[in-house]
Amino acid sequence: MQNFTFSNPTKIVFGEGQIKEIANLIPANARILVTYGGGSIKKNGVYEQVVKALEGKTWFEFSGIEPNPHYETLMQAVALVKKEKIDFLLPVGGGSVIDGTKLIAAAVNFDGEPWDILAKHAPFTSALPIGCILTLPATGTESNGNSVITKAATQEKLSFGSPLVYPQFAILDPTTTYSLPPRQIANGAVDAFVHIMEQYLTYPVGAKVQDRFAEGLLMTLIEEGPRSLAEPTNYAVRANVMWAATMALNGLIGVGVPQDWATHMIGHELTAMHGLDHAQTLAVVLPALMQHQRAHKREKLLQYGRRVWNLNQSDEEALIDAAIAATRGFFEQMGTPTSLSGYGVGRESIPKLVDMLVKHDLLALGEHGAITPEASREILELAA
Amino acid sequence: MQNFTFSNPTKIVFGEGQIKEIANLIPANARILVTYGGGSIKKNGVYEQVVKALEGKTWFEFSGIEPNPHYETLMQAVALVKKEKIDFLLPVGGGSVIDGTKLIAAAVNFDGEPWDILAKHAPFTSALPIGCILTLPATGTESNGNSVITKAATQEKLSFGSPLVYPQFAILDPTTTYSLPPRQIANGAVDAFVHIMEQYLTYPVGAKVQDRFAEGLLMTLIEEGPRSLAEPTNYAVRANVMWAATMALNGLIGVGVPQDWATHMIGHELTAMHGLDHAQTLAVVLPALMQHQRAHKREKLLQYGRRVWNLNQSDEEALIDAAIAATRGFFEQMGTPTSLSGYGVGRESIPKLVDMLVKHDLLALGEHGAITPEASREILELAA
Repeated sequence: MQNFTFSNPTKIVFGEGQIKEIANLIPANARILVTYGGGSIKKNGVYEQVVKALEGKTWFEFSGIEPNPHYETLMQAVALVKKEKIDFLLPVGGGSVIDGTKLIAAAVNFDGEPWDILAKHAPFTSALPIGCILTLPATGTESNGNSVITKAATQEKLSFGSPLVYPQFAILDPTTTYSLPPRQIANGAVDAFVHIMEQYLTYPVGAKVQDRFAEGLLMTLIEEGPRSLAEPTNYAVRANVMWAATMALNGLIGVGVPQDWATHMIGHELTAMHGLDHAQTLAVVLPALMQHQRAHKREKLLQYGRRVWNLNQSDEEALIDAAIAATRGFFEQMGTPTSLSGYGVGRESIPKLVDMLVKHDLLALGEHGAITPEASREILELAA
Repeated sequence: MQNFTFSNPTKIVFGEGQIKEIANLIPANARILVTYGGGSIKKNGVYEQVVKALEGKTWFEFSGIEPNPHYETLMQAVALVKKEKIDFLLPVGGGSVIDGTKLIAAAVNFDGEPWDILAKHAPFTSALPIGCILTLPATGTESNGNSVITKAATQEKLSFGSPLVYPQFAILDPTTTYSLPPRQIANGAVDAFVHIMEQYLTYPVGAKVQDRFAEGLLMTLIEEGPRSLAEPTNYAVRANVMWAATMALNGLIGVGVPQDWATHMIGHELTAMHGLDHAQTLAVVLPALMQHQRAHKREKLLQYGRRVWNLNQSDEEALIDAAIAATRGFFEQMGTPTSLSGYGVGRESIPKLVDMLVKHDLLALGEHGAITPEASREILELAA
């Protein structure tokens, strides 16, 4: 096990009916900005619950934060925050709304062009406090310090991270996910699954607790993901998926172990160039990357196949083949195609995608830094 | 899954050589009290590392905190804290030193007799900040708000808990455990194992993540516990046991699930009356309790046997028998006898132990409140 530091200050408030707790969790005299997306929270009753819980408090709202949240949109929110002297941010929604609100929090007191926080990793020394209400289990942003933002003007998709933007609290009410479209549920489960794999499927360092936790989360998603599509109002199933997605990227399973993240980096280019959903790109890249990196990841692939999928082929290569096929099968079962062709993306796009990786200086990806642009090209060919 | 709130503010700093980090973690102008036990930290190099890291800071020391820390001893430390205007507490040791220091932290500004914090659950509104260096993986106290204290005068052993006494940070360096006597290593692994079982072996509520995490920790202790005795300086093994013991009782695996804790309650009487080590009492009580409660715990006993011990008997009663036998076998393998007779305690003690449970108002233990004094008597008979 490698040395590590772990700390996660976010208070989780989990379960049906918990939205009302924001009344106690937000400071009494706060000037609150409720941020949200396209308005689905007005159709599923969440907005009403928020309004009721905020009764007697001073609050404003900012809607229209889009998927892959746009820098340009968020800067409008920053202007509103300054004008109304907002001092507490309450994002209500999925990863995009929460990620976007983290940038709002960091940008408000930033001296200069806030895009530099993303483009130049410009440091910031304060951020507005955030508490969030999660309505789409997927990214883990509700209890971490990460954020991914897109500049619409240039289609650049960049990330930043800081302990200053951890939400102080996160409300997770599984019933808020009942009305989500199947594609978003599928994307969320696939996204969480691949978050776990990025921290697990590398090489062994004898970190048994982290391995067992990762395997437990993977098994939970494999069992509950398809059920969450088939039984949209099964509380226990939605609760398990929601909690698994949070635990997948709150830092815990990644402590003291090597991490990969090449699938994410290659996938980002696919979203930027072809508009695939984030999770769709992961479902395309990961199985191909597992195949391409099977020598480097050999021991963990065997462990993954045996423990997560209960495979017991005596031939190790056959076992690895079966583990990759099972992974692909899980994504397909969630309704998420696992090849470029499944999204109408042809082989002719591959050189352009590799060019973008080079342009973004992503020349040595993965836990060994061994995924060169040439290797990325081969992975994309395998994913064609 | 039941509704829950989870938050754990302790920063974990894990790994070899991390003790020096206290220089950065403790406020620069703090007046620090280093608390410790019988002086083993002066033999294994830990004290030297602490002294070096505190160079240039203002610090004092208080030694002699005993196992099952005495209220009387801790009140001497409180007097020192007041006299020297201490404003930061740095316990260095195992569960007793850290538990004891939590009481010091709470007692300093307490208006009245601090024993009331334990005996009457008297509220306190502030506590001195604590950062700890853990040298004995066992109780989980390094990242929770719990503390167990004994009043020597009356041999009362009582507990208190508060978010105010969570350590701000916990340094976990597995190499500090290399010099521990085998009995303490065994006790620590057994203690952590039973902490997990108290939160896991109840009845199913469909909480798949919590179940998988608990099972993963149990499997880790089963694999690494015996190795930690056989290979005292195997870093990876000691690291896994240390991290598993912390995760066993930092609140995470217990969220949203029913909990038992009857084994602990019955075990406390055994320590108080016969002086058995805490973990020894757990090793005696748990297998007997599993046997006695096998109807109430049936579904979880089957799941435990299948997932944790890989049992596959077609007869379910035989499978449960084997799961209980395997649990007993693990404790024995750790050198910890699992019957009262193994510690020279005869059946004639059982009525007196039950009388103490009644005296302490422990009339309805376990996740169903179904363990009456009569049931406790039967459990102790099974443990004879």
